[in-house]
Amino acid sequence: MQAGKPILYSYFRSSCSWRVRIALALKGIDYETVPINLIKDGGQQFSKDFQALNPMKQVPALKIDGITIHQSLAIIEYLEETRPTPRLLPQDPKKRASVRMISDLIAGGIQPLQNLSVLKQVREEMQLTWAQNAITSGFNALEQILQSTAGIYCVGDEVTMADLCLVPQVANAERFKVDLTPYPTISSINKRLLVLEAFQVSHPCRQPDTPTELRA
Amino acid sequence: MQAGKPILYSYFRSSCSWRVRIALALKGIDYETVPINLIKDGGQQFSKDFQALNPMKQVPALKIDGITIHQSLAIIEYLEETRPTPRLLPQDPKKRASVRMISDLIAGGIQPLQNLSVLKQVREEMQLTWAQNAITSGFNALEQILQSTAGIYCVGDEVTMADLCLVPQVANAERFKVDLTPYPTISSINKRLLVLEAFQVSHPCRQPDTPTELRA
Repeated sequence: MQAGKPILYSYFRSSCSWRVRIALALKGIDYETVPINLIKDGGQQFSKDFQALNPMKQVPALKIDGITIHQSLAIIEYLEETRPTPRLLPQDPKKRASVRMISDLIAGGIQPLQNLSVLKQVREEMQLTWAQNAITSGFNALEQILQSTAGIYCVGDEVTMADLCLVPQVANAERFKVDLTPYPTISSINKRLLVLEAFQVSHPCRQPDTPTELRA
Repeated sequence: MQAGKPILYSYFRSSCSWRVRIALALKGIDYETVPINLIKDGGQQFSKDFQALNPMKQVPALKIDGITIHQSLAIIEYLEETRPTPRLLPQDPKKRASVRMISDLIAGGIQPLQNLSVLKQVREEMQLTWAQNAITSGFNALEQILQSTAGIYCVGDEVTMADLCLVPQVANAERFKVDLTPYPTISSINKRLLVLEAFQVSHPCRQPDTPTELRA
């Protein structure tokens, strides 16, 4: 199958899409964005065309090398295996375990509980509290874990997949007005990452589908 | 650090613990079980000792090679990297992507939404419906995905990490009385896996902490 330029199905504000955008930027992979607006027209992820691409009706999905991959961490692991430079997983298996543990904690233990489709199932007046609880409960654990794994970044001094999960999750925390004072380690790693070019170009405020009033 | 026999902190009914128990059985890794009862004494996962081990207050956690890993998929990936035989990820990167996509769909897209700590936050009369919705919505997608990835098992004809996620999730579906008729592919793969020895010895009805009345 002819493999053209990779296509990322993405929504500017989706934290899972942002993880993948950072990976693509770090690895210098040129790609096209197809925006999937999660709120317009009742949610474009529910269209027949998109469901055929990702039956989970979620972004991101990446068309690359003749296949379509969804689930952000599965995408990042594939990019790591096929485009290993610069690496997003350390060489040492024990450090790789720390990276995956932190990534899974965020991608499986925090984000799914505060995403749009779950919040819709909660009474409207409870949604903010629900999201805040999911994030603070995860961040309480994460702050403690980072104290033993972190160097400059989440695991040691190299940017890893864990950092690609951290920054978008902190952005969600800010959107849901979570007080970040109890999380000095999370906050300072987040600050150090946000200045890196790959985190800047992939930022929700700089995407093709970012509404004008949110651009920066 | 002296690395003795690995210790698995596990709860017989936890689907995430079961995933890891299958991996340990398939790879022939001898280990000790330390049962963490998620309901007794208000939940033993909330004890100070266990929180020091896993700040997320969840099972499983595995002490191995002088480190403690939590998050079931991070544990399985570590076992795969350090004890590669028999392999739980195919050699082909595209098939590995399918395995991780299915694993993440279950571990990040279904299980977290129907686990005990989340259900506790839902009104009691709504808990069953909430869990059923999470599972059917994920299974609708999974059934469609498996139609293009499955052979005898979830991805091709070898047992992979995806199968380690599938079987415990189907058991949860049964506990929550989900009608499995719409999922013939999921059901038949599940049946083929359940007869394998590694899935039998790791089964919730055969653990050191399985209550007598649930033993089989």
